[in-house]
Amino acid sequence: MQIATPYLMFLGDVPDRLAAKTAYGIADWRPEWCIGQMRLPGCAADLGIPDLTLPEAVAQGCKSLVIGVANAGGVLPEHWVAEIVGALEAGLDVASGLHTRLASVPAIAEAAERHGRRLHDVRHSDETFPTGKGRERAGLRLLTVGTDCSVGKKYTVLALEKGMRARGLDADFKATGQTGVFISGRGVAIDAVVADFISGAVEWISPAADANHWDLIEGQGSLYHPSFAGVSLGLLHGAQADAFVVCHEPTRSTMRGVAHPLPSIQDVIDLTVQLGRLTNPAIRPVGIAVNTQALDEAEARALLGRLAAEHGLPATDPVRFGVEELVDRIVADFPA
Amino acid sequence: MQIATPYLMFLGDVPDRLAAKTAYGIADWRPEWCIGQMRLPGCAADLGIPDLTLPEAVAQGCKSLVIGVANAGGVLPEHWVAEIVGALEAGLDVASGLHTRLASVPAIAEAAERHGRRLHDVRHSDETFPTGKGRERAGLRLLTVGTDCSVGKKYTVLALEKGMRARGLDADFKATGQTGVFISGRGVAIDAVVADFISGAVEWISPAADANHWDLIEGQGSLYHPSFAGVSLGLLHGAQADAFVVCHEPTRSTMRGVAHPLPSIQDVIDLTVQLGRLTNPAIRPVGIAVNTQALDEAEARALLGRLAAEHGLPATDPVRFGVEELVDRIVADFPA
Repeated sequence: MQIATPYLMFLGDVPDRLAAKTAYGIADWRPEWCIGQMRLPGCAADLGIPDLTLPEAVAQGCKSLVIGVANAGGVLPEHWVAEIVGALEAGLDVASGLHTRLASVPAIAEAAERHGRRLHDVRHSDETFPTGKGRERAGLRLLTVGTDCSVGKKYTVLALEKGMRARGLDADFKATGQTGVFISGRGVAIDAVVADFISGAVEWISPAADANHWDLIEGQGSLYHPSFAGVSLGLLHGAQADAFVVCHEPTRSTMRGVAHPLPSIQDVIDLTVQLGRLTNPAIRPVGIAVNTQALDEAEARALLGRLAAEHGLPATDPVRFGVEELVDRIVADFPA
Repeated sequence: MQIATPYLMFLGDVPDRLAAKTAYGIADWRPEWCIGQMRLPGCAADLGIPDLTLPEAVAQGCKSLVIGVANAGGVLPEHWVAEIVGALEAGLDVASGLHTRLASVPAIAEAAERHGRRLHDVRHSDETFPTGKGRERAGLRLLTVGTDCSVGKKYTVLALEKGMRARGLDADFKATGQTGVFISGRGVAIDAVVADFISGAVEWISPAADANHWDLIEGQGSLYHPSFAGVSLGLLHGAQADAFVVCHEPTRSTMRGVAHPLPSIQDVIDLTVQLGRLTNPAIRPVGIAVNTQALDEAEARALLGRLAAEHGLPATDPVRFGVEELVDRIVADFPA
């Protein structure tokens, strides 16, 4: 899959920032590709880039409309269809991270056909996978896990890729979600793989590698989330993680989309080690990554200090304070 | 989905009995629908029903060729295609439990079209599901779990349905695998659902019901199986099981398809309770079901006696010794 760049980011009329996390992720990690945004009345998200009409976007060189919305269930709202058809008519390809396939909507399929434009469904893969085998493979793997969905698992591995490479380590980001695939141009959206092949797909995207090579695998969901724990477990088993980082958002009162309370960071460490041992008996935590956006700097530093002391692990906000301490710990725990 | 009966059972050239477990399951629970079998040279499975040619099967009233093979990965071998095309030409519909969609093979799609026959892919569902919510719903639910794949989870719930109904209880088998769907004519093959919707699909097939109604939900895989644990966990969370029965096969040395050893029955009880509590804090084991086929009767009874004493639970082989003790325990633990 090769998505034509640059992008016009479609935000629709999503009710909050979290619902547009795909778009924010792309804009943060590939700002040079995000020329403008397109929003409908009532939209509560804002990427802080110019609002463009379709003709303006085309005039400025945009090649693809990116549907950067990750709502629960991934459904395509009826009233967005006309906007998507308009983009195809204006000459843009359309790339979507929704579960609903663009081509399954007749008006969209017809418009793409009529105007010779391409439709990309980033959540879908035409690749077929073997079932996971759980056999040890060479190379090192780090997985991000979480106390909930949408707590910074992708940001953390992307920041680690940058930080580890800067220290001369051989490290690659491995995307497992739609945003990651938009950012890296490859990978598999694990949550859209047929259930029998979750761990097999992760084994496929992170094959055997050099002994000192790190695959930094984007985690999904949480072992404690009643909607998605199966995905998280298959991902953990397929990743055969040597190391993991626990990601957390301290202001969340219930898990995303359900009424369940969040587990503690210690709960997540314990269950990840307990269940991860099935395919890697040496799995161990190497740090804690906290999204401290809602805290002021003093509060954030105090919280991170408490967490580090409590768990005996480096704790940071990768976006705000960088990942140096995490990289230090990884280098110390896994000498070349 | 409504599959025309009776069936001609296609066994191909599978290397062992386990690989044809779908066919055995259908023949055991719906013998009146299984008129004959069709086997290729080298086939190691035998349902003990007449081997029929296609003309013989048609003459005896067969309406559908059932591909009753559940190989790992569910791939359709190249050399079966001609046989399937022959069945369509002879006037049969074809129903398959493989992951590969029949219609994705051009020769099969063309033959079905040309002869006006129907293709059923029992593992695939065109139903769309919401994500699981984990909210408590009315009614009682029993789930079978296992120390491995293929250890009798479906047989146990089918036997329980029969036994509980005979005692006047309101109980329904809920299929979650291809064989179960063939047997009940409805249900969802959970292992083929897109990963994000595993628990949501189980919530859908077992909705809120009368307070004394039992849904007997067919389990899949094992929480300890490195290929399929994610499916098992999503199923456990979606089922919100009040009760579970652990299924076991005592002669297995490694888990099916991988090199991992089997967990103990106690391991499975402990992990099922630990993880199941997320969506049903009252989850509890009510029995152990052992496939004792490889043991003589004295050995089987001795093993079951030991397991019952060790775990404080009724232990039986549902096929060999019935499920009366399990039903007694269910009635005692869940008074109307």
